[in-house]
This record gives sequence, C-alpha cells and structure tokens, in this order.
Amino acid sequence: MNDRDFLRMAIELARQGMNNNEGGPFGALVVKDGQIIGRGNNRVTSSNDPTAHAEVVAIRDACQSLGHFQLEDCVLYTSCEPCPMCLGAIYWARPDRIVFAASREDAAAAGFDDDFIYEEINLLPAERSISASQDLAEEANGVFEEWKQKMDRREY
Amino acid sequence: MNDRDFLRMAIELARQGMNNNEGGPFGALVVKDGQIIGRGNNRVTSSNDPTAHAEVVAIRDACQSLGHFQLEDCVLYTSCEPCPMCLGAIYWARPDRIVFAASREDAAAAGFDDDFIYEEINLLPAERSISASQDLAEEANGVFEEWKQKMDRREY
Repeated sequence: MNDRDFLRMAIELARQGMNNNEGGPFGALVVKDGQIIGRGNNRVTSSNDPTAHAEVVAIRDACQSLGHFQLEDCVLYTSCEPCPMCLGAIYWARPDRIVFAASREDAAAAGFDDDFIYEEINLLPAERSISASQDLAEEANGVFEEWKQKMDRREY
Repeated sequence: MNDRDFLRMAIELARQGMNNNEGGPFGALVVKDGQIIGRGNNRVTSSNDPTAHAEVVAIRDACQSLGHFQLEDCVLYTSCEPCPMCLGAIYWARPDRIVFAASREDAAAAGFDDDFIYEEINLLPAERSISASQDLAEEANGVFEEWKQKMDRREY
C-alpha cells in the first residue's frame, strides 16, 4: 500500500458516506506504520454535528485507537484539502504529513464553504460575517495564570 | 443575564474544567433566546481527543439539544478567542455572533499553539510545518460530481 492506494481508499469512503446519506462527499484515513488506525467520512447531517467532518471523525477515531491525543508518526489521507476547522484539528493532533485529493476551490464549486472560511479567518474579529467582540480579558487571564502555576497540569 | 454574565460563566467553566483535570483552561457556552443550550470545557487530555476544545464541545452539545446542525439565532461565549479549528467549527455551525475574553496572544503566552496555527494557515500547503501534498484530484472531483447530481442530497 502506498500513498496513492490510501488516498484512493479515502475517496471511496467519501463516496460510501455520501451514498449512505451520512453527510457530504468527504472521506479520510489515518495511517501509522502502514496500518489504518482511523477512518472517517462526513456525518454532519446524519449526526447533527457540524464538526463531524471526515478528517475530524478520522482523527478522533485514530486517537481512540491509540489511547492518546497525538498522532505522532501518522499520515492523514483525505479526499479533499482540509477546511480551516480540519486543518486546525490536524495541527492539534500533529500527524507527520497530509495527502489530499480535491482542492478547496473544487469544494467551493461543489457548494461547500471551505474557501469562504479561509478568507474570513484573516479578517479582524469585529469585521467577520460572524462578528466577535471582546470583554473581561483580565478575568480570563487570571485562569491562565492559575494554569501556569498548576503543578500537575498536563500540556498538549 | 447579559453578555458579561454569560461570558463570566464561560470563564468559570474554564476554571472548573482545569481544576478537575479535564484539560486546558478553556470554557464556552451557547445561548439562544437567553437560555443556555450548550456548555463545554476543554477535555483534550482526559478524553484523548485533540478536537475536544471548549467551543467544539459546546457547539456539539448545543446541536444535540436542538436536534440540528445549525446554531441560528445563537450566541457563543468563550473564555478565549477561538483557535482556527474552533473558528472553523463556528462558521460551520453559524451562530449569530461570538463574545470572547482572553486573546490568541494571551493563549500563546500560556503555552498554547493558537497563534502559531493562525500563522501556518496562510502558508502554501507544501510549505507548512505539517506539509500537505496533492494527488488524484480528478478522482475526488468525480465524487463531487456525483454529489451535485444526487437528488436527495442534504446540504449544510
């Protein structure tokens, strides 16, 4: 099994999930040492979970397999370039690398917001279409101070 | 209850989750029509789930409450500016607006990668610290074509 074989399996997961009416046409796999340790397809509409994108589902599945919140020495294969949410999830899971098939522009052409969200991220919080305002920074920073002084904190 | 009251409750969820050793010092709430419909605190290390950030947990909880994958007419309160993963999740869930307390720079100062991930997102996929390569775009686009022609597809 090489990169192309695993990527083709991710594309097939996309097709199966779509045909089963689980969600959008997206699939992903996590592979470690040549073994598949996590699988996912989009399940947004069937599970009422807007975060259930293929990559997030595959990452969560792989982490449960490993009993750890990090995907060291793993490769993530995905049928489409990750959206910002999934790219963020990938950075937090820290696999070694990513292999993807369709691009974010291809996803946009199929009716998905990926490219739009990439554009919104670079706007100032107050200028985004979902606007954000800030308050009570000092109180929240007090909790960060407690965290830094917590002797048994587990970092991630 | 006003914005500041709800935001203070999100900060308190951050503190409780940290003190219970569930994960990092982050908390979030989803409010609709003045009622709390979703709560979350960071549970990355206790649940071995790198996607279990406070906002993602709160969004998932709120969507289960509503039985829907969209958070129309909702406000998300979070103890810290959302990381790119959480901001992406927010765009997919589509609440009306966000109120946050600490900033991404405050999170970085407390040892979290949020600001680093914001910087990485704007790099070309091949140039990121977790590099991404592309292959088989045509095969994946074939699945997008099937999606566009699927009569019973449920968009999100």
